[in-house]
Amino acid sequence: KAEFDRIHNHGTWAVAAVGMIAYVMGDLALVEKSLHGSDLDGKGGFLAQLDLLFSPDGYYMEGPYYIRYALMPFFYFAEAVERMQPEVGIYEYRDQILRKAYYAAVQTSFPNGVFPPINDASLTMDVAAPEVILANALTYDRYGEDEDLLGIAKVQERVSLSGAGLKLARDFDASESEPQISWPSVEFSDGSDGTSGGLGILRMGDGMEQSMLLMKYGVHGGGHGHFDKLHFIFFDQGRQVIRDYGFGRWVNVEPKFGGRYLPENDSYAMQTIAHNTVVVDGMTQNMWDEDTAESMSAKRHFFEAEEAHAIAMSARADTYYDGVDMQRTMLLIKDAPLLYPVVVDLYRLTSATTRQYDYPLHYSGQNITSNLQFETNTNAMQPLGSGHGYQHIWHTAQARTDSSIQFTWLDGHRYYSLTSSAWPESEVHLGRIGANDPDFNLQSHPLLVLRRQAENMLFASVIEPHGYFNEARERSAQARPRITGVNVLGHSDVASVIEITGQEGLHWRIVVSNQSEGVTGLQEVTFGDQSFQWTGNYQVEFLGNSEAEN
Amino acid sequence: KAEFDRIHNHGTWAVAAVGMIAYVMGDLALVEKSLHGSDLDGKGGFLAQLDLLFSPDGYYMEGPYYIRYALMPFFYFAEAVERMQPEVGIYEYRDQILRKAYYAAVQTSFPNGVFPPINDASLTMDVAAPEVILANALTYDRYGEDEDLLGIAKVQERVSLSGAGLKLARDFDASESEPQISWPSVEFSDGSDGTSGGLGILRMGDGMEQSMLLMKYGVHGGGHGHFDKLHFIFFDQGRQVIRDYGFGRWVNVEPKFGGRYLPENDSYAMQTIAHNTVVVDGMTQNMWDEDTAESMSAKRHFFEAEEAHAIAMSARADTYYDGVDMQRTMLLIKDAPLLYPVVVDLYRLTSATTRQYDYPLHYSGQNITSNLQFETNTNAMQPLGSGHGYQHIWHTAQARTDSSIQFTWLDGHRYYSLTSSAWPESEVHLGRIGANDPDFNLQSHPLLVLRRQAENMLFASVIEPHGYFNEARERSAQARPRITGVNVLGHSDVASVIEITGQEGLHWRIVVSNQSEGVTGLQEVTFGDQSFQWTGNYQVEFLGNSEAEN
Repeated sequence: KAEFDRIHNHGTWAVAAVGMIAYVMGDLALVEKSLHGSDLDGKGGFLAQLDLLFSPDGYYMEGPYYIRYALMPFFYFAEAVERMQPEVGIYEYRDQILRKAYYAAVQTSFPNGVFPPINDASLTMDVAAPEVILANALTYDRYGEDEDLLGIAKVQERVSLSGAGLKLARDFDASESEPQISWPSVEFSDGSDGTSGGLGILRMGDGMEQSMLLMKYGVHGGGHGHFDKLHFIFFDQGRQVIRDYGFGRWVNVEPKFGGRYLPENDSYAMQTIAHNTVVVDGMTQNMWDEDTAESMSAKRHFFEAEEAHAIAMSARADTYYDGVDMQRTMLLIKDAPLLYPVVVDLYRLTSATTRQYDYPLHYSGQNITSNLQFETNTNAMQPLGSGHGYQHIWHTAQARTDSSIQFTWLDGHRYYSLTSSAWPESEVHLGRIGANDPDFNLQSHPLLVLRRQAENMLFASVIEPHGYFNEARERSAQARPRITGVNVLGHSDVASVIEITGQEGLHWRIVVSNQSEGVTGLQEVTFGDQSFQWTGNYQVEFLGNSEAEN
Repeated sequence: KAEFDRIHNHGTWAVAAVGMIAYVMGDLALVEKSLHGSDLDGKGGFLAQLDLLFSPDGYYMEGPYYIRYALMPFFYFAEAVERMQPEVGIYEYRDQILRKAYYAAVQTSFPNGVFPPINDASLTMDVAAPEVILANALTYDRYGEDEDLLGIAKVQERVSLSGAGLKLARDFDASESEPQISWPSVEFSDGSDGTSGGLGILRMGDGMEQSMLLMKYGVHGGGHGHFDKLHFIFFDQGRQVIRDYGFGRWVNVEPKFGGRYLPENDSYAMQTIAHNTVVVDGMTQNMWDEDTAESMSAKRHFFEAEEAHAIAMSARADTYYDGVDMQRTMLLIKDAPLLYPVVVDLYRLTSATTRQYDYPLHYSGQNITSNLQFETNTNAMQPLGSGHGYQHIWHTAQARTDSSIQFTWLDGHRYYSLTSSAWPESEVHLGRIGANDPDFNLQSHPLLVLRRQAENMLFASVIEPHGYFNEARERSAQARPRITGVNVLGHSDVASVIEITGQEGLHWRIVVSNQSEGVTGLQEVTFGDQSFQWTGNYQVEFLGNSEAEN
């Protein structure tokens, strides 16, 4: 009974199974329990699942991997209800929440159709999963023909064996142009009433050449949630280049603990350091306490994706660490001197006392060059720390600098460089996942951690894809970055102002509003003897010779 | 002058360049020097290169990566000679050595067209390289139309801009069936007179589903040679699953030492432990002395690829370690209970004194399970040794056993298991490449080392691909091996006899002749109270219920 009424994908499976059997048995009283809960009070049941598991935008609180799984009971049961009791109007329920749920699921996907592996999730689950094939046909049939759904069918390479699937297949066959998925930049609210932060996805470019930047600023997401507020993923070149680790699990691999979740899912994959968000004082957000994490959420600040050359999103996560407020603003910017859009990241932390701020980047591939003098741990390695996930990271190298930081690696056919603003006594640590892993459950990936001690701090960084490498053709071009400097001109509770400079006259000034409400009119902030004026939540000025605004 | 007369690819480039310019200038005396050496004594020059750099089979002493490179001067200059001085008969020279050279190059390639990265070599160089495109057209034009060359053109997706290329393109267009590469099992002799060992390639299956087993038992191969006699590569599932590291170089990546060979090419990639061949007493073959290595070669024993279910090759490398003789016999066997062909490896070492024998396997992917109790180095790691390449291997875990060994890993969509015969006080060490690498030049790959102390020793092992894993579809099947035991019944200078057992009635008895000459008639060997009779160089008996012989 508790599981049947539980607001969770297990509950969805239970009510869908009972409800569909009840229709077959002709037991409409049992159907009522499936729809309205075992006590018929609406605290459990299918409709409560539809009310509480999704935000008004259709975003599912557990994330894309689990909605993929739950699409099957949601759509199978909905279709049964619609056929047996059309008077319920299930497809219209909650302003067509099922339609929104399906679109919200597939619109989070990377350009290659893989779902971003936020929270507990496989790295490879994609829109070709059988549950998505089912939901694609029913959504197409019940909510109207949409070219994008034909594009999904193309990735899926099959349709469900049903009237809806047949209709989809016929329309696919009849379509004159090749159907393509083309998702825009999109933001989803989170929480059942849509006020608990959200998920932002900025996109530039088309098809597999699209750059996609995702930031996570919603609810914890239940037992499969990760302690990763303000975490981001950067997808470029058809892959995660700043990556999420996904779950700690070898799914269905019997010798690996029966294919179930492994201890390292708790001890590493869920921890803050396993993500691309700042760790304060070496500890996981909410001290790894799920109840505390569930009691709060990150908050959206703004999401603006209209400009052609600079799109941006901003969010806050306050009190995830006692006494520390955090705001992250991320932009995708393209400009003539650059081959590909770059990520600009302004991660601001405020605290009344000095704290240790660790800014991690989980990348892939080979370290190529840096302006730092690394002291490499050549002949002995220890873990980077003793708890909160750090015990699983081999400490491969460290460097110290008072100047700005550049670090370049090679991933596939492109180079990537981090350029980050100067701060006194910055430390940079390099690591590789795999320590304290007696049963070889973890995957071996590198990461970089930028460590600074401060009260208030602005990490201002650019992540720049550049150049080209093809080992088979023995070609390498532009192995060093074009962005050469990131300078913080000032930051306060009013605004952050930075300048970014590079080769070929690249020169940008970026202002981001740090005010708690969205702002529209002319704003001003003064740092030292410089005053800056801007309009709206953010402003990117292309100075120098760059051509972005031409 | 020294470089011009040098028997080496640098010499080939020099004589080709000078010769072709000489034709343009009409300076036939200079052409003569290009053909016959600067002193016209035949000790240098193009003909001497053709005489000395190839075995009579056309195998190039530096290996596939470097012949790929040298194909360009060989074929450009040959075509110039043929057009300007057809009386030289360059394409007929040395019994059509250029034809043999081209076929020997491309016939070493993996089923995906990539050249096996033996000696200094890139991991991805393939038959679509421009030099191979050139040679493919000229070979097709000058030596007659061959369906296989059309198959190569298909992989290349282009032809050279020449009359020969046009002819190839027209024939490709006119061919009724889709041209396919289909290389058979093949052995190449090595050394200019063909008596210095060779290279053996066993193949089972077709296209990308082909299993390919390569063993290297020829000459050292000059300055780009590796100290890796009796090394092997196993290609399965479209990739190297037991791998060669290739060179220690980020080719043409300017920040990596200008893209040139790195110090780690010497200190790691060339060393014996970087390969899949036994290391004696923790030292590299020939004590890493190139002159000593050049003064000897491995020797072929036999190569027989006619049987449908069990094909085999055998070779020796004696005195690469003082007082140690080595013989390796490798088989590809398929049998009804198995999804894919398996590798059977009999590596025999003899010594008058007790030595340490390290048997390494360089694999890829994730450790899944083992019958060993590993002691994992969870909280601190050191290198596996202090020299001969061991200093570059992080020591991740160790185990000790007196029983047989099973170790399973996952690579892509398949599982792989090593099953190895028992030996008292065996040690198994797991490692990961990357120690003592201050500039991050090495790639991070795992390896396994089976360590035993003995005078005479037979490592008898099976490498079995099995099962299926698809993370995106969450499917896993047969994650554990079907081969359950490998038992050594005896080994001597006459023969080695082993039995292999497995599930579903799998039961094989394998006899391999260890006599120095090939044998044909009925042979007999006795171990304890058991006598074994067989015919020829090797014999595989399928006992029990298995169906291979049906």
